[in-house]
Amino acid sequence: MYETLAVVGATGAVGRIVLEQLEARNFPYKRLKLLASQRSAGQQVRFKDETITVELLAPGAFEDVDIVIASTPDEVSAEFAPYAVKEGAIVVDESGYWRMDPKVPLIIPEVNPDAIADHQGIIASPNCSTTQMVVALAPLHQAAKVKRVVVSTYQATSGAGLAGNAELESSVRQILDGQTPGHETFQHPIGFNLIPQIGGEKFEGYTSEEMKMVYETRKIMGDDDIQVCPTAVRVPVTIGHSESILVETEKPLTVAEATELFRAAAGITVVDDLANHQYPMPRDCDGKDDVFVGRIRRDISGDGHGIAFWCVSDNLRKGAATNAVQIAELLQQSVASAG
Amino acid sequence: MYETLAVVGATGAVGRIVLEQLEARNFPYKRLKLLASQRSAGQQVRFKDETITVELLAPGAFEDVDIVIASTPDEVSAEFAPYAVKEGAIVVDESGYWRMDPKVPLIIPEVNPDAIADHQGIIASPNCSTTQMVVALAPLHQAAKVKRVVVSTYQATSGAGLAGNAELESSVRQILDGQTPGHETFQHPIGFNLIPQIGGEKFEGYTSEEMKMVYETRKIMGDDDIQVCPTAVRVPVTIGHSESILVETEKPLTVAEATELFRAAAGITVVDDLANHQYPMPRDCDGKDDVFVGRIRRDISGDGHGIAFWCVSDNLRKGAATNAVQIAELLQQSVASAG
Repeated sequence: MYETLAVVGATGAVGRIVLEQLEARNFPYKRLKLLASQRSAGQQVRFKDETITVELLAPGAFEDVDIVIASTPDEVSAEFAPYAVKEGAIVVDESGYWRMDPKVPLIIPEVNPDAIADHQGIIASPNCSTTQMVVALAPLHQAAKVKRVVVSTYQATSGAGLAGNAELESSVRQILDGQTPGHETFQHPIGFNLIPQIGGEKFEGYTSEEMKMVYETRKIMGDDDIQVCPTAVRVPVTIGHSESILVETEKPLTVAEATELFRAAAGITVVDDLANHQYPMPRDCDGKDDVFVGRIRRDISGDGHGIAFWCVSDNLRKGAATNAVQIAELLQQSVASAG
Repeated sequence: MYETLAVVGATGAVGRIVLEQLEARNFPYKRLKLLASQRSAGQQVRFKDETITVELLAPGAFEDVDIVIASTPDEVSAEFAPYAVKEGAIVVDESGYWRMDPKVPLIIPEVNPDAIADHQGIIASPNCSTTQMVVALAPLHQAAKVKRVVVSTYQATSGAGLAGNAELESSVRQILDGQTPGHETFQHPIGFNLIPQIGGEKFEGYTSEEMKMVYETRKIMGDDDIQVCPTAVRVPVTIGHSESILVETEKPLTVAEATELFRAAAGITVVDDLANHQYPMPRDCDGKDDVFVGRIRRDISGDGHGIAFWCVSDNLRKGAATNAVQIAELLQQSVASAG
């Protein structure tokens, strides 16, 4: 067993849930260290029956650490991960910074657990919108080979952290009070509005968030031929990313076959009964670990090789904290089985 | 000129805007009659410098009427339109009831104005989500022939009328106040949530709203080979439907060509400057008549025949009232040119 675990960014939106998940999943460790930037260092955090003081994220902090679960902005990860590895820790990183580095495995435990073996100290957890999509696509890919994906997202404000949720709430309150809503975290007021931009421009008019769904999907699925056309949109929802997905497979799948593949897959819950108004919704997925799939239909625009479906998952859970903790569990298991 | 105009459903969400539009566009008529069901008959409505009493919608009400603009539920239209026609009126109908009737032209004035000539008393205005999509697709279709459309909608609560907006507001307030939100107009609470169902099940797991986007698009464009895969989703936005659209054309179009076609088309405003965070959003389109298009990109998942874009329009304006008033204007022009 790796004995000392560090959680970096423990006071953020995702970090808090990492701590909840460590407790809920009974993650095996002997000592827990919490690290954060200057702004949060010194804070007291309750965890199980301890009160832990958040320490400063700085060189030297990982000398006594075995595994790190980190939820920080990209630039913070770019700086600390190399010295954490040099000090002997293995870093499970939720930032976007390392994901496409060829030396860094990009892992969804239900999809490509074996790829973790190649790590050189850093293991990346994918972007939230990618993770839930790939969890859903993986069983179809295995059975019928995914060729093309057209996806439109409906992404919650918590994807931008606690500040995103606070801004949604204040924006909505301002509008209800007849005031002009402000904005700071998002490019425009988000209350009762949609913003079809997440991240900056990255490639031919596609945003960085959209291109993550292209590049990360290929890397996790281990198939550079998968074509993805993404549109990422911020919606006035607090928690839970939703995705309208059209997938084209090499081998045609019936709706019944696709449904059965979803049902049999680890980490997926099918909710699909239109007649009784049952389908995944952010409201129902908040605080749950699974990826929820519904509205499974034949693509009536295609040549018989397409399936359309609707996919919702708690972006702070499977989209972030849960997946990172699962990666850390994989590491623990590999030590256990090696030992 | 047709001299007497009747507005049916003048007190509803769309009817109110029909009246605004008649005034703003200086619609030519001599006498205006307002009609509504028992519930609203007798109400006084201010229009220009008159106060008009809403009369009861019943047989006989159209004896002195030349043109009708009607915004009513389907079942109301099914009942009154036949006797209105028998009494000598021409009915411009916004309900869904007559749209697919082969004897009824389905008109978007920018797209298929000539089809109006075949009317036999009833002319239908398309569904809101269809109208804005077809306005955007039409110039591409004319230049390059549309083969296939994959569309995911983000539809405002005003699509369900004044009650829809009231329910969004109360749902949001209840959640902000820590209460459990109720729902009546929608299948589930809509505050900070998404509902991937608009209408009942219609065809192979697709809803009635989704199938309108298939059938009506073909009828308006006059091309039964156009394939559409729609996903219709209700979002917590008051006014303005948004659509993430991937269109495949027979002849490939570059982004520059598609943009130029959009710019040159009547009824479309292009807002497309990602670097400066400029793209269509519901907030900015509320109260405007155009269809707004942005995020125009090459489909990076396809074979070079696809264009992806984002399309927003005020669902009560071009999606309903404005289009109906424009149809009535077409009728007036045809009489004027005939006379």
